[in-house]
Amino acid sequence: MTTVLKQAADARVASIDLAAATRAEKDRALLLMADRLVERAEDIVAANAVDVNNARDAGQTEAMIDRLTLTPARVEAMADGLRQLAALPDPVGDVVRGSTLANGLELRQVRVPFGVVGIIYEGRPNVTADAAGICLKSGNAALLRGSGSAFSSNAAIVAVLRKAVADTGLPADTIQLLDATTRDSVKELMRARGLVDVLIPRGGSSLIRTVVEESTVPVIETGVGNCHVYVDQSADLEKALAVTVNSKTQRLSTCNTAESLLVHADIADSFLPLVLEELALKGVTVHGDPRVANYSDDVVPATEDDWGREYLSADIAVAIVDSMDDALDHIRRYGTGHTEAIVSESATTNRRFAARVDAAAVMINASTRFTDGGEFGFGAEIGISTQKLHARGPMGLPELTSTKYIVSGNGHTRG
Amino acid sequence: MTTVLKQAADARVASIDLAAATRAEKDRALLLMADRLVERAEDIVAANAVDVNNARDAGQTEAMIDRLTLTPARVEAMADGLRQLAALPDPVGDVVRGSTLANGLELRQVRVPFGVVGIIYEGRPNVTADAAGICLKSGNAALLRGSGSAFSSNAAIVAVLRKAVADTGLPADTIQLLDATTRDSVKELMRARGLVDVLIPRGGSSLIRTVVEESTVPVIETGVGNCHVYVDQSADLEKALAVTVNSKTQRLSTCNTAESLLVHADIADSFLPLVLEELALKGVTVHGDPRVANYSDDVVPATEDDWGREYLSADIAVAIVDSMDDALDHIRRYGTGHTEAIVSESATTNRRFAARVDAAAVMINASTRFTDGGEFGFGAEIGISTQKLHARGPMGLPELTSTKYIVSGNGHTRG
Repeated sequence: MTTVLKQAADARVASIDLAAATRAEKDRALLLMADRLVERAEDIVAANAVDVNNARDAGQTEAMIDRLTLTPARVEAMADGLRQLAALPDPVGDVVRGSTLANGLELRQVRVPFGVVGIIYEGRPNVTADAAGICLKSGNAALLRGSGSAFSSNAAIVAVLRKAVADTGLPADTIQLLDATTRDSVKELMRARGLVDVLIPRGGSSLIRTVVEESTVPVIETGVGNCHVYVDQSADLEKALAVTVNSKTQRLSTCNTAESLLVHADIADSFLPLVLEELALKGVTVHGDPRVANYSDDVVPATEDDWGREYLSADIAVAIVDSMDDALDHIRRYGTGHTEAIVSESATTNRRFAARVDAAAVMINASTRFTDGGEFGFGAEIGISTQKLHARGPMGLPELTSTKYIVSGNGHTRG
Repeated sequence: MTTVLKQAADARVASIDLAAATRAEKDRALLLMADRLVERAEDIVAANAVDVNNARDAGQTEAMIDRLTLTPARVEAMADGLRQLAALPDPVGDVVRGSTLANGLELRQVRVPFGVVGIIYEGRPNVTADAAGICLKSGNAALLRGSGSAFSSNAAIVAVLRKAVADTGLPADTIQLLDATTRDSVKELMRARGLVDVLIPRGGSSLIRTVVEESTVPVIETGVGNCHVYVDQSADLEKALAVTVNSKTQRLSTCNTAESLLVHADIADSFLPLVLEELALKGVTVHGDPRVANYSDDVVPATEDDWGREYLSADIAVAIVDSMDDALDHIRRYGTGHTEAIVSESATTNRRFAARVDAAAVMINASTRFTDGGEFGFGAEIGISTQKLHARGPMGLPELTSTKYIVSGNGHTRG
């Protein structure tokens, strides 16, 4: 048995007790995890320094190094995240559906944890505490496969969390860190069907594609976003400008950032000069079709490639469309099913757009940036699903659960 | 582009209009589909005769041939199934969750169809009409890959259904039959990620395993059932006898039939003689552990293999356990997560069993045979999921939908 399979088997055993834990027991563990992180902040920062030095030696960019670096304040923020989780309701045990059947059988469909959740992620070490906490609160054992570049930090954090969990009487093996020095641990995790109930890849599109293609464990695909803003002929110009600029520039590197703008031909003369000027002021490069180029000399000609790009940078692809149906066709062709926005004052148009666009979230006269577990009021988010199976859109605690039917009778038999 | 990919692309286009269809439009189509099946029953039976003759020439068993054979009465039953679907509520458009956020954004999570559903099935041609109807009612285009042995029947049924759909103004391509003469169509379907939203394999365990292992399209795994009945020391003997015998013998070949019986040691002396006699009367062979063999000379010694078997025949594996936790361990080791039953008068024991057993359905003092969409009152069933992602247990119409967040603002931007 490989190390990963052994860890998965241990997680499976631990998950049985964790699934039966009460909310009070889980919250106690979360609060102690938070306290211990703060108490041990110095050790965690010291372990992090190893990763940071390695990153410097490897010639990483300052931006990368900043993302990797932990400070006492950042450890405190991780602890606060765990405390917030403790304050959230427990999805486990929620009765999703219930009835008494004609024969007197009492039927309840109840939320239960998945069991063992594997999370593969890149970059920041704070994800480690976050993912461990969300899994614990939802009653799931977590197998955490972080990036090699944060391994020392992650190991220090997980050691503290495991000790805290054990000290409250829950099994330490509900939180385990997998080897991040080779790709083998990812491969083994993807083949651990039967031991691992669901895999969540978080990170770049190539990681996600690999997991989706190769995993025999069920996968929840998260968030590549080529999000569009469509400005209809009926749009209010002020709202259209605010929504477009906010969707593109409020933060450049997130999956819910707008990457494409589609403008109805009938409003192009009045809207495009406004938005091109504003985007230029914000330092955004516009990659436009030939009609868009008529409105500004700064427009870079868009190639076919631009329409499908998730830039994650100060760039936007802009096209003029002759109808909303053309916009819908464009989105169908190039969209990633994440978030699509319309700006329009027409109730009929909004209704048709919302019904016909195929995406996890549809924004009507609102910024694409609102697709977020925090903004939606979920309190915690493990990622944004762009698949249709199980969970779609921001995933909070209930999305980390399955259900079980519990049927009570009195010796009932089927005739 | 292969034929299957072309059909999937056509289904995708058709699914856009179907997703926007109202319940009234879909019900009209279902009712016309039903009428046309009855009108064209003679042609369908004639097409079926081709399959039946081929099966006879191939030396199939009479049981297989009976399953394959269509009669006017069986065609009428298919039509009735479609009429029943028309009478069921439409899951599409149901608001699953909704709120107004602090900033005034109006959030709704609404049920939407998956889009394109692929169904791979074996055996009976009536599944064709059934699956097509369930997909249509839930707003999904269906790609149907039936068995080669029923291809002539399936082709005749699908031709009638497509014509009826088109005559009500919905796209015919919402129902398509895939080539069943080679395995290539299954392979292509499994790789059609992006065109097909979900695959549901229905049939033998080897088909299901292949699809689960090889598909890049998300899969809903259906129903292999090694279901257990656990008779606790606190059981009422009469209930225990009724539940055990019904679970095993009410129908032998279904996935919710009990295949194993676990008896608490403290009740073995009183219960085993009763149940062994009753099972013998019903012609059931008992594969027992050495302790069980003490109670009857007819007990066949159980091998390790017996504990994991889904017999689907007049056989049952029987073991004595020293505690409920031993029963839970046994089920954890050999169960398939389908249905597990307990017979016990102890509220504490029932509560612990229900919380700790990992299965789609838990029966407390009731037969395992109740795990069924019809029995649960769902009105329609596309299969019984034994996975934890998306749907678990009997799947009705809502389980064939995803959701979409629709967020309405007034020019809202994120600060």
